[in-house]
Amino acid sequence: MAQNIYDNDEFFAGYARLPRSVAGLEGAPEWPALRALLPDLRGQRVLDLGCGYGWFCRWAREAGAAEVLGIELSEKMLARARADTRDAAITYRRADMESLALPGEAFDLAYSSLALHYVENLNRLVSQVHRSLVRGGSLVFSMEHPIYTAPAEPKWLLDAAGHKIWPVDHYLDEGPRSTDWLAPGVIKQHRTIATTINLLIRAGFAIAHVEEWSPNDAQIKTQPSLADERHRPPFLIVAAKKP
Amino acid sequence: MAQNIYDNDEFFAGYARLPRSVAGLEGAPEWPALRALLPDLRGQRVLDLGCGYGWFCRWAREAGAAEVLGIELSEKMLARARADTRDAAITYRRADMESLALPGEAFDLAYSSLALHYVENLNRLVSQVHRSLVRGGSLVFSMEHPIYTAPAEPKWLLDAAGHKIWPVDHYLDEGPRSTDWLAPGVIKQHRTIATTINLLIRAGFAIAHVEEWSPNDAQIKTQPSLADERHRPPFLIVAAKKP
Repeated sequence: MAQNIYDNDEFFAGYARLPRSVAGLEGAPEWPALRALLPDLRGQRVLDLGCGYGWFCRWAREAGAAEVLGIELSEKMLARARADTRDAAITYRRADMESLALPGEAFDLAYSSLALHYVENLNRLVSQVHRSLVRGGSLVFSMEHPIYTAPAEPKWLLDAAGHKIWPVDHYLDEGPRSTDWLAPGVIKQHRTIATTINLLIRAGFAIAHVEEWSPNDAQIKTQPSLADERHRPPFLIVAAKKP
Repeated sequence: MAQNIYDNDEFFAGYARLPRSVAGLEGAPEWPALRALLPDLRGQRVLDLGCGYGWFCRWAREAGAAEVLGIELSEKMLARARADTRDAAITYRRADMESLALPGEAFDLAYSSLALHYVENLNRLVSQVHRSLVRGGSLVFSMEHPIYTAPAEPKWLLDAAGHKIWPVDHYLDEGPRSTDWLAPGVIKQHRTIATTINLLIRAGFAIAHVEEWSPNDAQIKTQPSLADERHRPPFLIVAAKKP
């Protein structure tokens, strides 16, 4: 079973104060990039892997989705998702993505925001997602970028000239990384871009678009603290199709 | 026109002493990974973009290729390629990849080893390559990895604990990078993995495999100096198909 860090009190309290928790999708600077990759949702059946508070599930319904299934491991997040949702076409289900079983050809879109880097057996999950999509269906997801997850000490350093650098090491050594983010000992799975792309291809997906997300000039102007993210992408975004 | 650094005397003399120049394909540690992505070459028409001394052109013929066209900008390299080749089925042609024009549906395989990171207008070249391939044809290439090309100062640093780190900065800022490798002022084009993959997809290619190359354990055992390359991939290898 995956580490259920979102049910840790300290982590949950910290997460609840992040802009993306307070303001929802609009509080996530990478949301416009993700949204641009989504198909027209009118009449579509949507799966959200790691739905958290249910922000995307509700947005998908507003965008015309016929039905939405949100999968989430954290009971605390599910409780808030359910409390914030009054829509019979949205179902929340508690499940661990390490062992999730999905019905065949049941969805037009599978979506996931910043959850798949917690999944150890991504190969298994991607096969399940592939089988759960109709032909022509899409998978669109974000995850932490491997340049971001690789380092043993994931913190900005200054070089001899005083310039900020991101200290990459062990990039090719895939596996768990323990970091102290909101709480000590948060486990993320580091895998290279190549591994992620190749496992999608082997599962039968066609890669449609890859994005190494960084803030654009307008975002940096509004939120200058984002400027460092131009030095190394925090997120990887992928759109794939089931042909 | 692209910088023709291989015709610089200092650069050419340095390049001629590299293991890959002395021992050919077997002197390049990434060659087994590239070779594993190649289709069966028997009877195939092969294009080699940046053929250098012609090692791959001659290997392709030994592997059964019917015809091979090697493209190269450097006159010095072409002179040696021609001197080392006695095979009427191999043609060498001097051309700049920035303005190269290729015939339509003339090749089964387009190959390129560590040349495309010198190309400024990769979009234009990839469109030319796509049109020059038959349906079902393959494009297999290596280039310098963007983690390798990104840094303003591409040199290993030690962190406070004395561990080697690779100082990534400006990863998202694409464009020329001037480095001192074999000669001062060698210009390479830094572009992200996402940009490279997306321009292939937009040109009509289906991505078949992506590899962020690093030496395996056996290679590190034979050549311990390769161990650092596990910290950050020096090369990106991509296989794509024209559907």
